[in-house]
Amino acid sequence: MQGISGQSVNISIIGASGYTGAELLRLLSFHPFANIVAVTSRQFEGKAVKEVFPHLSKMKFENLMFENYKKEKIAEKSDVIFLCLPHKTAYPIVKELYETKKELKIIDFSADFRFKNPEIYEKTYRVSHTAKKLFEKVAYGLPEINRDKIKEKNIIANPGCYPTSVILGLYPAKSAGLIDTSFPVIADSKSGVTGAGRKSTIDFTFCEVNESFRAYAVEGHRHAPEIAEKLELKSVRFTPHLVPMNRGILSTIYFATKSSREELIEVYKEYYKNEYFIRLKENPPKTSDVAGTNFCDIYVTKDENTGLGIVVSVIDNIGKGASGQAIQNMNIICGFPENSGLNFPGNWI
Amino acid sequence: MQGISGQSVNISIIGASGYTGAELLRLLSFHPFANIVAVTSRQFEGKAVKEVFPHLSKMKFENLMFENYKKEKIAEKSDVIFLCLPHKTAYPIVKELYETKKELKIIDFSADFRFKNPEIYEKTYRVSHTAKKLFEKVAYGLPEINRDKIKEKNIIANPGCYPTSVILGLYPAKSAGLIDTSFPVIADSKSGVTGAGRKSTIDFTFCEVNESFRAYAVEGHRHAPEIAEKLELKSVRFTPHLVPMNRGILSTIYFATKSSREELIEVYKEYYKNEYFIRLKENPPKTSDVAGTNFCDIYVTKDENTGLGIVVSVIDNIGKGASGQAIQNMNIICGFPENSGLNFPGNWI
Amino acid sequence: MQGISGQSVNISIIGASGYTGAELLRLLSFHPFANIVAVTSRQFEGKAVKEVFPHLSKMKFENLMFENYKKEKIAEKSDVIFLCLPHKTAYPIVKELYETKKELKIIDFSADFRFKNPEIYEKTYRVSHTAKKLFEKVAYGLPEINRDKIKEKNIIANPGCYPTSVILGLYPAKSAGLIDTSFPVIADSKSGVTGAGRKSTIDFTFCEVNESFRAYAVEGHRHAPEIAEKLELKSVRFTPHLVPMNRGILSTIYFATKSSREELIEVYKEYYKNEYFIRLKENPPKTSDVAGTNFCDIYVTKDENTGLGIVVSVIDNIGKGASGQAIQNMNIICGFPENSGLNFPGNWI
Amino acid sequence: MQGISGQSVNISIIGASGYTGAELLRLLSFHPFANIVAVTSRQFEGKAVKEVFPHLSKMKFENLMFENYKKEKIAEKSDVIFLCLPHKTAYPIVKELYETKKELKIIDFSADFRFKNPEIYEKTYRVSHTAKKLFEKVAYGLPEINRDKIKEKNIIANPGCYPTSVILGLYPAKSAGLIDTSFPVIADSKSGVTGAGRKSTIDFTFCEVNESFRAYAVEGHRHAPEIAEKLELKSVRFTPHLVPMNRGILSTIYFATKSSREELIEVYKEYYKNEYFIRLKENPPKTSDVAGTNFCDIYVTKDENTGLGIVVSVIDNIGKGASGQAIQNMNIICGFPENSGLNFPGNWI
Repeated sequence: MQGISGQSVNISIIGASGYTGAELLRLLSFHPFANIVAVTSRQFEGKAVKEVFPHLSKMKFENLMFENYKKEKIAEKSDVIFLCLPHKTAYPIVKELYETKKELKIIDFSADFRFKNPEIYEKTYRVSHTAKKLFEKVAYGLPEINRDKIKEKNIIANPGCYPTSVILGLYPAKSAGLIDTSFPVIADSKSGVTGAGRKSTIDFTFCEVNESFRAYAVEGHRHAPEIAEKLELKSVRFTPHLVPMNRGILSTIYFATKSSREELIEVYKEYYKNEYFIRLKENPPKTSDVAGTNFCDIYVTKDENTGLGIVVSVIDNIGKGASGQAIQNMNIICGFPENSGLNFPGNWI
Repeated sequence: MQGISGQSVNISIIGASGYTGAELLRLLSFHPFANIVAVTSRQFEGKAVKEVFPHLSKMKFENLMFENYKKEKIAEKSDVIFLCLPHKTAYPIVKELYETKKELKIIDFSADFRFKNPEIYEKTYRVSHTAKKLFEKVAYGLPEINRDKIKEKNIIANPGCYPTSVILGLYPAKSAGLIDTSFPVIADSKSGVTGAGRKSTIDFTFCEVNESFRAYAVEGHRHAPEIAEKLELKSVRFTPHLVPMNRGILSTIYFATKSSREELIEVYKEYYKNEYFIRLKENPPKTSDVAGTNFCDIYVTKDENTGLGIVVSVIDNIGKGASGQAIQNMNIICGFPENSGLNFPGNWI
Repeated sequence: MQGISGQSVNISIIGASGYTGAELLRLLSFHPFANIVAVTSRQFEGKAVKEVFPHLSKMKFENLMFENYKKEKIAEKSDVIFLCLPHKTAYPIVKELYETKKELKIIDFSADFRFKNPEIYEKTYRVSHTAKKLFEKVAYGLPEINRDKIKEKNIIANPGCYPTSVILGLYPAKSAGLIDTSFPVIADSKSGVTGAGRKSTIDFTFCEVNESFRAYAVEGHRHAPEIAEKLELKSVRFTPHLVPMNRGILSTIYFATKSSREELIEVYKEYYKNEYFIRLKENPPKTSDVAGTNFCDIYVTKDENTGLGIVVSVIDNIGKGASGQAIQNMNIICGFPENSGLNFPGNWI
Repeated sequence: MQGISGQSVNISIIGASGYTGAELLRLLSFHPFANIVAVTSRQFEGKAVKEVFPHLSKMKFENLMFENYKKEKIAEKSDVIFLCLPHKTAYPIVKELYETKKELKIIDFSADFRFKNPEIYEKTYRVSHTAKKLFEKVAYGLPEINRDKIKEKNIIANPGCYPTSVILGLYPAKSAGLIDTSFPVIADSKSGVTGAGRKSTIDFTFCEVNESFRAYAVEGHRHAPEIAEKLELKSVRFTPHLVPMNRGILSTIYFATKSSREELIEVYKEYYKNEYFIRLKENPPKTSDVAGTNFCDIYVTKDENTGLGIVVSVIDNIGKGASGQAIQNMNIICGFPENSGLNFPGNWI
């Protein structure tokens, strides 16, 4: 494969000082084919990985120094770039990196290239996008529904954490035509606090999150249009909640359906039969089953009293919901076994 | 009022060693008219309140001794009895206490008398009920929708914790005819762990609850028929979840409606205008706003994209969801100001 | 009593938007003699208490508006002022308030007037103090060891949270001469996160505190000299730790002693026999026994193998460790029963 | 090496349904040379690993069935046996397995063979030991202080979790003669809740541990004699505490010393210079740095005011404190690189 240096791949992480960056560093520490060549951070420039992240002492990349981002330098030495930047900040960097070295594989964690339709992006995120031409180079990086495109494209738009949990929970039913769309699809999602990123605001201090549970963005959240577009639904009702725990998303999903419990289960089994990271469960899963991993555990049933199909799906928001999925995408792009470096269990407790 | 000993009321608590019993003891410690005369527990017979509950040292009832339940003794000295026993165990005790002393006021925490229709109880709880004649003496103890009945009856069926949060969240819309019942009403509820009671099972040990979030009883929970009956709905989709925190329930409720956001808010304001314990909020509430109290905070809105009315309601499951509400019922029965002993704020953090 | 308006006292809270301010507002909501006349905050000027603290809706002071601090205005309408400001910011305000109205009672939460010797303050906090003349007006506000002075003085230096737990744990032994000071006294203290105040720094975000335990300030903490001075020890070894919970301090204290377990217990019983807020325990207490209250629970024993006296003491760091103690001081100053508004139990769970 | 089947080792886990068993299963899932041949549990006999531990679905050993322990069957197919049983239950099993197959390597998680002197064991655990002859076959399994013995012996007594953290924190100072033993050594230790094992008692339910911190076994804990024996101290003051988190022990250790900070640090650096699992830190470590791993992070300093040496050490109680250390012992026994299957970082958040 062109652009990939033999059996191992040279990787740079832009914006590596947050939770998704730290998770990439953790996961790539034991990835058999990963060679991290650069980590960037304005804040931590000149510091070693082990200083910023003491839990990574004695690991392969412990002495790598955080550097300031310079496009030529980064582009030159990299085969794959993980871009852990916020929306709006990301697309100009994607653009200049692409222009500097066309054969680069760029995996973008932001929302900037997630939509097929840039106008929906602009409306949802209230910014204008000045790199629209690049959209033809982009694949939405949810392998279980889009693997072929991921193989072909240079820029991978790594999905949002909530959308990952909801889309994986609904895709088999939707694509099989089992959802009665005359009633709204409802995704009631609950997330651990790492989903908010590594930032210091009063709302995410320990004392104000701990021993409390809340809904937020009840009037509308940016992930709703992403979910709706990928599922080809006109709209979706999506309510996010904050759970006092670090990792994990659980989505409880409701949709009207004429199908029976058995039919639904059969369709999910068939759809996901070859997917390593999807585990269909006979009992409702809990977030601690998947915390720290790239797995998505799914439970499907039918409420006969109300005619509703019910799906419960769980992921780790910074695993399958971010950094794990990004590595899964890298594995696909690079022709590695798709679960390389990701075939380990969670801690559970 | 007959049966009430002057300005203060003599109270017994049957089964006082669990979380709802402890909460009654805590709340009645500073209730201006409460005189606890007996607390029963087989397990702790002969021990003082302060030995079993060290946090109650130096309080009014710290030296009260746990005793074994004997109907005559308890009936004789009590005006009001709080019965904190599980379903099926409760109704024979209610029956014998009622027969021993007709003027007793019994506030039953179990499900045994919550249903208008005992057959639904028997089906839901899979037991037969041999005190059906008593049902005419019973009022469902949710004051905001049933205050007049509570004043008249001798036996108060204290509502379930989840039903309290869901019924209070839906009643104004339902009674005003604003719910389009061609689409199912969905209550997605999340509860702290005290809701499971004080029992030692692996599932509720610290390590298996902490840092995990899960749905449970997805195939059907006993509180769904209670909710449906009180709201006069054919059925309701109810999914409970377990949050790693001690106190609090948040219910996110979805219903189809033609009404606008403003209409909905107006109807709720009007319905609850004289209710001390209902606080309508302009922002979605969090469980820590009500933890430790008898308040129910409610947020109402409309999702115009999907045509769904959305309600977020929060209570403390052992406050307004159990012991606080029981004391509110006692206050009503005894003719005390309804917020006596309950007009204090939560700790928040 | 001069300066106190009849049966109720007019109170201002300066810097009321943090955790200690919120706790004062909570506790004074049900204090029988408290009349809050002003709350100040630059950040929340013009907002009502219930907007800033939704848990205080429906409470007595819910509609009080946060205002900007102005010395004359505040001094004029107040009998008692609680000053919830950081060290160095506090003493100039104390000074100008005192000069504006000599009969004011000022309860200062900062460290600025805690030391008998201002030089130790200056060295410990690395600032110079330009209101040293006021020290003769000051009492250290730990009632159990200094009640008489508190009654006489105008400025009360409310103790630090850690010092409260350690001094109360050691005072009876020290004042009875039972500590062998040839071996250092060691206080190994563990605090909940509210102790750090309401501030947004990465170190106190939920994710970085949750599921982690750490020691901090191992090379030296400002509370060590405060503890040493009040106990008249040359020095004390004090190591603070951060516990992933909101409220509570537990101090485990070690000292060499020739006394037996029984002698130690006897001395503590005698010393604290009339103290409402001290509860001597027969079993080691836990922080949840006192969370939300002004109690200090103390367990005393002797390790015969090593000759060490061991004390375990628990308080709520923003209760007895801050706002509860401040109200206890106010009660003493105003001649109210010392436990007015403070005679309620904690939530426990 | 005799008894080891070529490059991979056949492993049985006796009592595999608790937390240490689950952790062994997790860690051995990605150990390059591990072949688990049997897992035993009375409770789960006939169930597959993935049914009992859903987080292990899709892992190598997911379909292994729990079986009932039978000595011949287990002995025959195993090279190495991990024994995860409580004290007193363990030693008869060790005995019969040893007698069944002398070349077996048995790694015992219980306290039954930890003491050099069986009398101290009998006194400490209040049982009599009827397999005392086996003591000469035993090595105490703390590799950093006893690696050579571990290589030679058949039975490895895996150390207690607290002793691991305390002994590793003190050994360099003690063996270099830097501790002034005229004063007691004090270890104030704090543990996550997994340390209590997977059992259902009221004391370890979520609600009673959460938001609470407590000391326990203040009058004496069984790990104190284990610590004292290994450090050759007459006695040690050891106070354990329970932290509301799942994994991790932090020990704060105090000892009198004439050495300077620099001398102490130098001695620790020299002693641990070749130890992969010991990470000496320049800042006090936190438990989340090591959670999920086999690392022990250590910080050493001196309090010049009191003349005390201070050590802060952190481990994961079921990692380096139990299952991780057991695998490290297995690696040593089998001649594998000592960090095989253990050279990965923790999740941190």
